[in-house]
Amino acid sequence: MYVISLGDDGAELRPLEPWRAEELLTHMNRGREFIGRHIVVPDLVTDLESSRAFLQSYADKTASDTGRIYGIWSDGELVGSVLFRTMDLSHGVAEVGCWLESSAVGKGLVSRAARVIIDWAFEERGIHRVEWVAKTENTASIAVARRLGMSRDGVLRESYLYRGKRHDLEVWSVLAPEWRAARQAP
Amino acid sequence: MYVISLGDDGAELRPLEPWRAEELLTHMNRGREFIGRHIVVPDLVTDLESSRAFLQSYADKTASDTGRIYGIWSDGELVGSVLFRTMDLSHGVAEVGCWLESSAVGKGLVSRAARVIIDWAFEERGIHRVEWVAKTENTASIAVARRLGMSRDGVLRESYLYRGKRHDLEVWSVLAPEWRAARQAP
Amino acid sequence: MYVISLGDDGAELRPLEPWRAEELLTHMNRGREFIGRHIVVPDLVTDLESSRAFLQSYADKTASDTGRIYGIWSDGELVGSVLFRTMDLSHGVAEVGCWLESSAVGKGLVSRAARVIIDWAFEERGIHRVEWVAKTENTASIAVARRLGMSRDGVLRESYLYRGKRHDLEVWSVLAPEWRAARQAP
Amino acid sequence: MYVISLGDDGAELRPLEPWRAEELLTHMNRGREFIGRHIVVPDLVTDLESSRAFLQSYADKTASDTGRIYGIWSDGELVGSVLFRTMDLSHGVAEVGCWLESSAVGKGLVSRAARVIIDWAFEERGIHRVEWVAKTENTASIAVARRLGMSRDGVLRESYLYRGKRHDLEVWSVLAPEWRAARQAP
Amino acid sequence: MYVISLGDDGAELRPLEPWRAEELLTHMNRGREFIGRHIVVPDLVTDLESSRAFLQSYADKTASDTGRIYGIWSDGELVGSVLFRTMDLSHGVAEVGCWLESSAVGKGLVSRAARVIIDWAFEERGIHRVEWVAKTENTASIAVARRLGMSRDGVLRESYLYRGKRHDLEVWSVLAPEWRAARQAP
Amino acid sequence: MYVISLGDDGAELRPLEPWRAEELLTHMNRGREFIGRHIVVPDLVTDLESSRAFLQSYADKTASDTGRIYGIWSDGELVGSVLFRTMDLSHGVAEVGCWLESSAVGKGLVSRAARVIIDWAFEERGIHRVEWVAKTENTASIAVARRLGMSRDGVLRESYLYRGKRHDLEVWSVLAPEWRAARQAP
Repeated sequence: MYVISLGDDGAELRPLEPWRAEELLTHMNRGREFIGRHIVVPDLVTDLESSRAFLQSYADKTASDTGRIYGIWSDGELVGSVLFRTMDLSHGVAEVGCWLESSAVGKGLVSRAARVIIDWAFEERGIHRVEWVAKTENTASIAVARRLGMSRDGVLRESYLYRGKRHDLEVWSVLAPEWRAARQAP
Repeated sequence: MYVISLGDDGAELRPLEPWRAEELLTHMNRGREFIGRHIVVPDLVTDLESSRAFLQSYADKTASDTGRIYGIWSDGELVGSVLFRTMDLSHGVAEVGCWLESSAVGKGLVSRAARVIIDWAFEERGIHRVEWVAKTENTASIAVARRLGMSRDGVLRESYLYRGKRHDLEVWSVLAPEWRAARQAP
Repeated sequence: MYVISLGDDGAELRPLEPWRAEELLTHMNRGREFIGRHIVVPDLVTDLESSRAFLQSYADKTASDTGRIYGIWSDGELVGSVLFRTMDLSHGVAEVGCWLESSAVGKGLVSRAARVIIDWAFEERGIHRVEWVAKTENTASIAVARRLGMSRDGVLRESYLYRGKRHDLEVWSVLAPEWRAARQAP
Repeated sequence: MYVISLGDDGAELRPLEPWRAEELLTHMNRGREFIGRHIVVPDLVTDLESSRAFLQSYADKTASDTGRIYGIWSDGELVGSVLFRTMDLSHGVAEVGCWLESSAVGKGLVSRAARVIIDWAFEERGIHRVEWVAKTENTASIAVARRLGMSRDGVLRESYLYRGKRHDLEVWSVLAPEWRAARQAP
Repeated sequence: MYVISLGDDGAELRPLEPWRAEELLTHMNRGREFIGRHIVVPDLVTDLESSRAFLQSYADKTASDTGRIYGIWSDGELVGSVLFRTMDLSHGVAEVGCWLESSAVGKGLVSRAARVIIDWAFEERGIHRVEWVAKTENTASIAVARRLGMSRDGVLRESYLYRGKRHDLEVWSVLAPEWRAARQAP
Repeated sequence: MYVISLGDDGAELRPLEPWRAEELLTHMNRGREFIGRHIVVPDLVTDLESSRAFLQSYADKTASDTGRIYGIWSDGELVGSVLFRTMDLSHGVAEVGCWLESSAVGKGLVSRAARVIIDWAFEERGIHRVEWVAKTENTASIAVARRLGMSRDGVLRESYLYRGKRHDLEVWSVLAPEWRAARQAP
């Protein structure tokens, strides 16, 4: 029902709810290897039941106002997601995450989608700080953070255990005043 | 973030989430007497806490896919709501409800909004039967049901206890094939 | 412990509690095909575990005062049930249900048992309206509703999905004053 | 609905459910001082809310098959109770409790009521051992245990803190074979 | 982290937490037959999952202050346990339990460990009565109760169903003043 | 019962459990202003009930193995605490926190206590990374992090809303190999 246009190429953002579990699974089956290089979601979404459980976990976060998930559709196909992994309204801090299957890379879809939800967080919900956390090796993700005008707060050394190996996590952030200033810049 | 235009007059439909409790309360304070002639919601939304609790109950229904609530904004002000009081995906049955404050009456807002959400139920969610339940005295509500192409299934005699008095409830419904046929009619 | 005689033929009404799961299963195995023509219970009670779960759901309704279930014994054998599928004390509305295995049909057992529990609802619990909901095809059930003095409130079109097919549901009801008047009639 | 006659004097046993909270409170207000000499229940049932909570705790025990409560009516008035404070079906052990307001003492009501529920525990539910626990000072209660054919297992020294004072608890019991033998005795 | 020395032979008492499930299982595999003659724990701890569940049940009791469990280590190996099966702070009553694998028998380990935890219960937690419950056949356990200065309160006849057979349970106890007097005795 | 000596001055570490709520409150009343300059705990522990709730939250974390709290006693008086605010065993990451009332400052108590619990995390529990998070203004806390051999991972800009003002949070960390190397250094 709810749809947000992401631009002239027909890309769209919609709520990603549990009844779309089959659609998410199909997307994940296409993108599993590519997405799974840096992101744990493909390991969590392996069949219809786990797909539904993953989406239900975000439906529950939505109900308690502690997170949200959105799907990105391109040419009528679910190709990725942006999300608030966490939202802490009391401290005004939210962490954004994202993924995209390989066929949809290169069109700026994640940047466009992230702009929409970060705008909402800052302007409608009173969030003060939006974070972006990514493995150091995930250069594509970090490039998006930079493109969104974020700056790097630091590196959490060896804090992420992924597929048996420990990884550094970079923390990037943008604050509400910075976001507004950047938008008004010529 | 998500907005659906309800027409050229700028009326809009948006998700009505718990963080809008204050906005709901303000609206209800304006419309309390008018809405409360037939609908119990004003008795449930009397201060900020109860307003939040009411919206939380629908946030929980959303998370479990058993109901939804939407706000109607006119000239930037929340003036009413359409909602799925219940959604039973296993039987394909959903019950629609609505309310409007008096200043917003007469513009067809509820009909327009109900069309949007009924479309979604039939076309995106696979609902087969949409119900509309109203007190016999609530002629405005029943007029909307008729305008939406519903037919009357019956009258549940004295089944509704409201402010100390027992009322008959009319049950109206429209089925998916009927809805589609009506939309394609010239 | 608690037993209510249903008449001179020795038929009896007792609470149907989870510890009788085996007895319920045995009864359902005899009556599965006959009862299952119109009623979903045989699909819910297929082995000891599901039988216990079904009875536990009614034990929980009993604890929260939102439903009850009773067994009908004939010649020492559990042959059917009457129940309050729902009880809404705040609105004074309760919905009665029933089933019987074929060997016990024709003795008026359901009518006798339903009279006992409807009396209790009206006279001891302050219920104002008792409902009876049945598939249009379930003529035996509708005949009981008529025999109990109920009148038909309407037909909920295609509201019941049963074994892959949609069915109309008839709603019958009797109100407390009607019930009392009928009992005092000569 | 369910009623068990306790004898020719019209005394009766019925389920004591949460909707009887007001009746329980009225009874407890009459018997508070007398019952409260040895039994903690009057301290738990002090107003309508706590009365409902007390009965709800037994409604929950009933639903989980871990306890039961029954009311004793004499001349149409609730005058006392027998109960299974605990029922452990896996070990076959249940503990009986009771109370009576002073006006109802001396008619053997508790003995008669206890016989009914102990019979049910042994004969219908497969309980093997029924316990009776009472403060040493509660000679009336211990007299009932003796009258029911129980024997004393021991004294749990200073195990019961009641209104600021420590008390010994006597444990009495009867086993299923003993119960049956006593009933068949001339 | 926390360790209590039980004497010069290097025996030690430590909290037995869920993350030690593997260690508990290994110990139980060695002692299963010996311990299982009288104690149900070996039937509850049969693989890693059940071992974790058993320890989690005590972690939950610890969190709600209704029980505790401690491991006994001898020569760096977990060889047994003392525990508070129940702790009722409101009545000041706690029940101690214990077990030991056969290789560790004869060194007074259980007596030493029980002394430590009973001291804590009486002196730090305000417990008034410590109970010891054992099958009549479990003469080793009863010997420890006697050694700890407990006296026998009684015998709960046939109250314990263990591996298909009913057993008498002896109840022993020691009260806080008795415990203190015994400790000050020369 | 469990006690760990922190050195020759008699300082000790013990589990800080809900039954010590009164002791915690007394300590917090002495240290409220000093501790509250940087740490939110004094705002959470304001009376007996909130003190118990705070400790219960850590009792629950202990039960689920997601956090721990320990009290520091000096001269028999509770003067501070070290704790694992979070423990994520699956990623091997734990965050340490601490506080001390002013009278106990300057003796190295927090460093000594933190060493004990970090040792336990690394050597007994398999934690790989221990974090230390503090407001930039909390120089005393950051000095302890440095003293423990931690290095600074970064600064989470304006991520902490404390008493109406936004603060930067510094993240410091030490990894298991670094910890071990430092301990073996001469």
